[in-house]
Amino acid sequence: MSGNDQELFNLAMSEEARPLLHALQKHIEENVAPITEEFFALNEGKEDRWSWHPRQLELLDGAKAKAKESGLWNFFLPDADTGEGLSNLDYAYIASELGKYSLASETLNCSAPDTGNMEVLERVGTPAQKEKWLKPLLNGEIRSAYAMTEPGQASSDAKNISTTAHLENGEWVINGEKYYISGAGDPRCKIMITMVKTSPDAPASKQQSQILVPIDTPGVEILEGMQVFGEDHAPRGHMHIKFNNVRVPEENMLLGEGRGFEISQVRLGPGRIHHCMRSLGQAEKALELMVNRAGSRTAFGKTILKLGKNVEVISRARIEIDAMRLMVLQAAKAMDVLGNREARVYVSAVKAMVPEKVCVIIDQAIQMHGATGVSQWTPLATMYAHQRHLRFADGPDEVHHMVVGRAEAQKHDMW
Amino acid sequence: MSGNDQELFNLAMSEEARPLLHALQKHIEENVAPITEEFFALNEGKEDRWSWHPRQLELLDGAKAKAKESGLWNFFLPDADTGEGLSNLDYAYIASELGKYSLASETLNCSAPDTGNMEVLERVGTPAQKEKWLKPLLNGEIRSAYAMTEPGQASSDAKNISTTAHLENGEWVINGEKYYISGAGDPRCKIMITMVKTSPDAPASKQQSQILVPIDTPGVEILEGMQVFGEDHAPRGHMHIKFNNVRVPEENMLLGEGRGFEISQVRLGPGRIHHCMRSLGQAEKALELMVNRAGSRTAFGKTILKLGKNVEVISRARIEIDAMRLMVLQAAKAMDVLGNREARVYVSAVKAMVPEKVCVIIDQAIQMHGATGVSQWTPLATMYAHQRHLRFADGPDEVHHMVVGRAEAQKHDMW
Amino acid sequence: MSGNDQELFNLAMSEEARPLLHALQKHIEENVAPITEEFFALNEGKEDRWSWHPRQLELLDGAKAKAKESGLWNFFLPDADTGEGLSNLDYAYIASELGKYSLASETLNCSAPDTGNMEVLERVGTPAQKEKWLKPLLNGEIRSAYAMTEPGQASSDAKNISTTAHLENGEWVINGEKYYISGAGDPRCKIMITMVKTSPDAPASKQQSQILVPIDTPGVEILEGMQVFGEDHAPRGHMHIKFNNVRVPEENMLLGEGRGFEISQVRLGPGRIHHCMRSLGQAEKALELMVNRAGSRTAFGKTILKLGKNVEVISRARIEIDAMRLMVLQAAKAMDVLGNREARVYVSAVKAMVPEKVCVIIDQAIQMHGATGVSQWTPLATMYAHQRHLRFADGPDEVHHMVVGRAEAQKHDMW
Amino acid sequence: MSGNDQELFNLAMSEEARPLLHALQKHIEENVAPITEEFFALNEGKEDRWSWHPRQLELLDGAKAKAKESGLWNFFLPDADTGEGLSNLDYAYIASELGKYSLASETLNCSAPDTGNMEVLERVGTPAQKEKWLKPLLNGEIRSAYAMTEPGQASSDAKNISTTAHLENGEWVINGEKYYISGAGDPRCKIMITMVKTSPDAPASKQQSQILVPIDTPGVEILEGMQVFGEDHAPRGHMHIKFNNVRVPEENMLLGEGRGFEISQVRLGPGRIHHCMRSLGQAEKALELMVNRAGSRTAFGKTILKLGKNVEVISRARIEIDAMRLMVLQAAKAMDVLGNREARVYVSAVKAMVPEKVCVIIDQAIQMHGATGVSQWTPLATMYAHQRHLRFADGPDEVHHMVVGRAEAQKHDMW
Repeated sequence: MSGNDQELFNLAMSEEARPLLHALQKHIEENVAPITEEFFALNEGKEDRWSWHPRQLELLDGAKAKAKESGLWNFFLPDADTGEGLSNLDYAYIASELGKYSLASETLNCSAPDTGNMEVLERVGTPAQKEKWLKPLLNGEIRSAYAMTEPGQASSDAKNISTTAHLENGEWVINGEKYYISGAGDPRCKIMITMVKTSPDAPASKQQSQILVPIDTPGVEILEGMQVFGEDHAPRGHMHIKFNNVRVPEENMLLGEGRGFEISQVRLGPGRIHHCMRSLGQAEKALELMVNRAGSRTAFGKTILKLGKNVEVISRARIEIDAMRLMVLQAAKAMDVLGNREARVYVSAVKAMVPEKVCVIIDQAIQMHGATGVSQWTPLATMYAHQRHLRFADGPDEVHHMVVGRAEAQKHDMW
Repeated sequence: MSGNDQELFNLAMSEEARPLLHALQKHIEENVAPITEEFFALNEGKEDRWSWHPRQLELLDGAKAKAKESGLWNFFLPDADTGEGLSNLDYAYIASELGKYSLASETLNCSAPDTGNMEVLERVGTPAQKEKWLKPLLNGEIRSAYAMTEPGQASSDAKNISTTAHLENGEWVINGEKYYISGAGDPRCKIMITMVKTSPDAPASKQQSQILVPIDTPGVEILEGMQVFGEDHAPRGHMHIKFNNVRVPEENMLLGEGRGFEISQVRLGPGRIHHCMRSLGQAEKALELMVNRAGSRTAFGKTILKLGKNVEVISRARIEIDAMRLMVLQAAKAMDVLGNREARVYVSAVKAMVPEKVCVIIDQAIQMHGATGVSQWTPLATMYAHQRHLRFADGPDEVHHMVVGRAEAQKHDMW
Repeated sequence: MSGNDQELFNLAMSEEARPLLHALQKHIEENVAPITEEFFALNEGKEDRWSWHPRQLELLDGAKAKAKESGLWNFFLPDADTGEGLSNLDYAYIASELGKYSLASETLNCSAPDTGNMEVLERVGTPAQKEKWLKPLLNGEIRSAYAMTEPGQASSDAKNISTTAHLENGEWVINGEKYYISGAGDPRCKIMITMVKTSPDAPASKQQSQILVPIDTPGVEILEGMQVFGEDHAPRGHMHIKFNNVRVPEENMLLGEGRGFEISQVRLGPGRIHHCMRSLGQAEKALELMVNRAGSRTAFGKTILKLGKNVEVISRARIEIDAMRLMVLQAAKAMDVLGNREARVYVSAVKAMVPEKVCVIIDQAIQMHGATGVSQWTPLATMYAHQRHLRFADGPDEVHHMVVGRAEAQKHDMW
Repeated sequence: MSGNDQELFNLAMSEEARPLLHALQKHIEENVAPITEEFFALNEGKEDRWSWHPRQLELLDGAKAKAKESGLWNFFLPDADTGEGLSNLDYAYIASELGKYSLASETLNCSAPDTGNMEVLERVGTPAQKEKWLKPLLNGEIRSAYAMTEPGQASSDAKNISTTAHLENGEWVINGEKYYISGAGDPRCKIMITMVKTSPDAPASKQQSQILVPIDTPGVEILEGMQVFGEDHAPRGHMHIKFNNVRVPEENMLLGEGRGFEISQVRLGPGRIHHCMRSLGQAEKALELMVNRAGSRTAFGKTILKLGKNVEVISRARIEIDAMRLMVLQAAKAMDVLGNREARVYVSAVKAMVPEKVCVIIDQAIQMHGATGVSQWTPLATMYAHQRHLRFADGPDEVHHMVVGRAEAQKHDMW
């Protein structure tokens, strides 16, 4: 992070990726935007909140078919033979575009956590695992979840995992509790990659493993949907799940016993960058709402925009957004240039920086709206809740600051 | 606010009020605490969310009867003959106690906005108005609302009221729109004190009037419940109401045409103090949750309490809470010593100070809890939403800072 | 700090102390204000910056004589027989008054660190120590210093003291280094109370002792005056001192070997309160300068006061100052009611709170002045430097937050 | 600032500029570093603080001769014929390098405000003006000043200039007062570009002109050196100057009457970028000091680095520095791609962002050092004072936030 490496400072999108971006914008305009309102309206008033309305799936499947036709389907995935694909930097620009429409990613089969799960399966899965789970995921026939966080443990210390798995007669027997398992409420979700402790006597970073757990395995008990500021985001949800003597075949282990953290390296970098790019989209939206509100309301004979500190609030929001964008792009570039492992400090920097600052910007947009800002008349309260939650996802801010601060100390041999 | 007036620095509760505080603590322990869980459980799963379950009302009425027996009923009201009653300072201590149990105030007939409405009726109501509305309010037979905020106007400028009323054949004809009218969803709510513009050609502060509008008057259209971070607090609610040629008798005017702001002086000071004391109760609760969480979770081999900045976060929360408490008590004392009008700068100071800082403290408690902090497993997200909303109630922070800053400038003849 | 104890909420000055306050105001007006300008003018252009101009001492001595005549001399000291004296609360009000004139304290013999040193000698000194050092201090014939902080140790951990003293032939032999020893540059300074480590094998809090070291003892080497943002405050200075085999008689030990921290309890509480009250005086001064500047400059056709966030900045400064004042008064009251030991959490709270916030207020006053704010044309830069330094005096903010945060955790049995 | 224009995201240094950077690093190492200590030591103890010691000039001249030999002299200036030169982006990288050695710029003839003054003369000067002033400046024979800020006017409003000039018998007669005129104390400073009001009846932005005023013109009265937190930076100084009927020939007008603001556009963009790059150098220095201190001091049995919030403080500093660097580079690139005029919002963004955040970082480094942080033993207090002053230079933060906030509103047609 010293500023020396010039390659890390070319943050422009590649020439090659631009046609993809344009195709994608066209797809959104033609296939996603037109279905969005109907899709979300159907979400209201269903008898079973934890199901999809058939028409919702029909709408989604239609858009997915169009994406397949136009060659956008699974664009996120590197070529299986050459290993080549979109650079993280180019993907960052694209994620920023996708972030503007909440349905867009799914129509292209690149929603979280499926992308991460597919990448993991692609890289470390056995042929049988790929056949059984990667294939239907790549086809968009099923969805998946990633079961990591536990209610009984401080999420800041990933080694704290208490869900256990032990081998018994050729089966892994899993016991424990996970929560905030996003997407596990979706009736289409069939498989969970589950972080467990298999080797309590190994060194601290070798005790964990990741295992494939079909969600319909006996003993998998979905207790409830966890809420985020009162919203449960049914039917996808953020599920609280209990594993009661859940038995899966020995071959469901990914990569190997004790290699759970190794697998995490694969998924976390890109996922965090995408989250951050979407957060920036939210920040841009909040700033736009703030400016439009401030410019169109009057008090004391002036627009609110011209009252008090409001112009400065807007200026500071713009400056921080632009600074965050450059930082996220540079972190993406660092993954391209240095590899995920070497780039982890860059990634932690943006993960610690972005959601916290975006929360502040959304909060200021709320303030500029008066009570309307916390109401159902603007998306701001929902946006705030989501960003606030992100400050815990993939480790709380404090953990990422620890990574960055420690790296800085290490430069001076002080850690 | 110079610190000169020694009387303003004696912030201890009076000897006389202490027995009342003890009686109240006993009432809460014996009559309120035991019904709380059942009451709120009944709120879930009702067919009509905008109604009360009969058992809810039965529980409340029981506790109210007990309060009447023990002489605590309507204690907030000054003696009708002597005008004497609880000082604002003593009430502040009591409000702090009431704030710990969400049902406590109602069992004593001192919930907002009824207390403010009763005070207004007591002070400026005609005998007929008192007979018709004050009496049943004092008996706890009905409830009331205060219709002030409008969706189409910047709430920072109270003179912005656009709901109009004009006289026609001995009736006020009211047209306009109000929102976030708390309690107007309660089936027991029968009357709204409504701020309207009656005299558009008068000087800016003489254009507004307050009128009694029975909620069942034809033309009063309740459109929906406004949400606060996704919650609508049914059945009391924060209602969005349209006034379509609503006609009320001429004698429903309070105090007189154009005297709306004069009436506001009566109600706003004490109400804001009570809000702030309750906010401090919330801050204490958040701090307690934060400490208990931090002390009972471990990561990296230590309690979270001993990690990173957490002790300092706790220290800063404690310091700010204690400072806010002293400020709120001094504002209450200022109302006692200087009168509501002279004390308005003190009151604006605490209104600008408290909800903003309490939001920060609750937010830190959320952070200390990890994802559990935004879930339904702690009250923190709900508490945050409520405090965030308070930063708009009775004028946004910015308006109160304007009052305080301008007063400071005026001391130096600079405004 | 729970708010329960009502006695802690009566923060008014006592009736008895008011005549003292008035006498003191009269003294300042008649004897201090008139000599201030000449005194400080004489400080410029002396050949030896580390001396006083004879006329400076003449002016001071004149005012001191007047204070003796009017019975104000040594008012800070409790009555030797009855132990009674000014309460900490009353003293806080008086310190606030004294803080407005930089010469006032010295004319009444109540400057730091002499007051603390005299209190220590009064309470723990032997008759011989009192005769030799307390008497001339009480008479204002000499001045004193307190040698605690060391350049080679983190000041946050008081147990870190590395200056050693060991007994040799009936003498303590002292070796080590101290810095920021305020007042030790004053030619009138004759004695230093010096914190040393005498018992390295004792438990951590019993290793330190305080010893009387005459400043002219051989081996006491004054290396230089430490600066605070470039100012050295000659001739009193903040001296960097080396102790090279400094030998003092065995009987110069205060209270007893290993009891150094016990003595610290005596001095620190009141001293910190007085610092904080003076800091508040500085904050009031900064706010006054800010308002007057903002109200008298124009830009873009308005006074600066009415531009941007400035009114809100002023409001926030006023609110924070008032809150800090109440907190400092309550800490003083806590010392009166609970004793210094029990009140230490209150004292740490204000020590952590006040200088940091006052720095912010002065910084905002600087911003409101443009470049003039950092120039010699306002006292703001000097005030800032002084307050910034205070964030380290008697332990850095972090240590005091640790005291407060830990006490909060202990309430819940979490530490 | 929307992120659309891909060209603005390539922030890497050009291939062509790299040899220059290397030559410059070599020059610094061989010719600047070796003379630095002696140069600054000579600055102490001179009889006339407002002069140079002959040996100081000798040292400087030696290094300047070397720079001429190696072709680095005047590298900042675009080629007179082709107009081509270093891009702003490349210059930003170089400024960052120059910022590490306070003497480096002068040895290359690219110190402020000479570079700005030379650029102005190059672009708008008449042949006679160039012959008389630009030539000796380019040769490094004289130095210059820029007289803009006035003590009597709010610096936030550039149109507030009150120094007047009117034509009388073919001469401009100038009256008024300027302060913080950096470098005007240098005995080698011969010429000041002076902003004056010539056309009070013209539209607000056409009233100002810039005139060449030789510093030895009768009536130019240097009153004193303005201080920055107590330092006056003699002999270059920040001078307070009075213009008493100062008469200069009519042909000393630059560009034309009423075109003063037009000229400002030329100079301000690059100058601000260079300031910001140097500020980042200071922030890196502060961070390095902070880490080294925190890693090498112990308290409570650990390095300070591992106590409390310190790692997070370090992390936040690193993140902010990296974000600021990218923003400054992008602003430089914007000047290259869009031109100074279109890039002004980018430039205001970094001017508002950088010095404020750098002050915070230096302040935290001070805190990590204990009292040593405000002493003469670290450069931190001086660095803080300088950065604090920068928050006013070329307009206070508030003015730049106004530029950015207004531009944001204009995107939505809200201004």
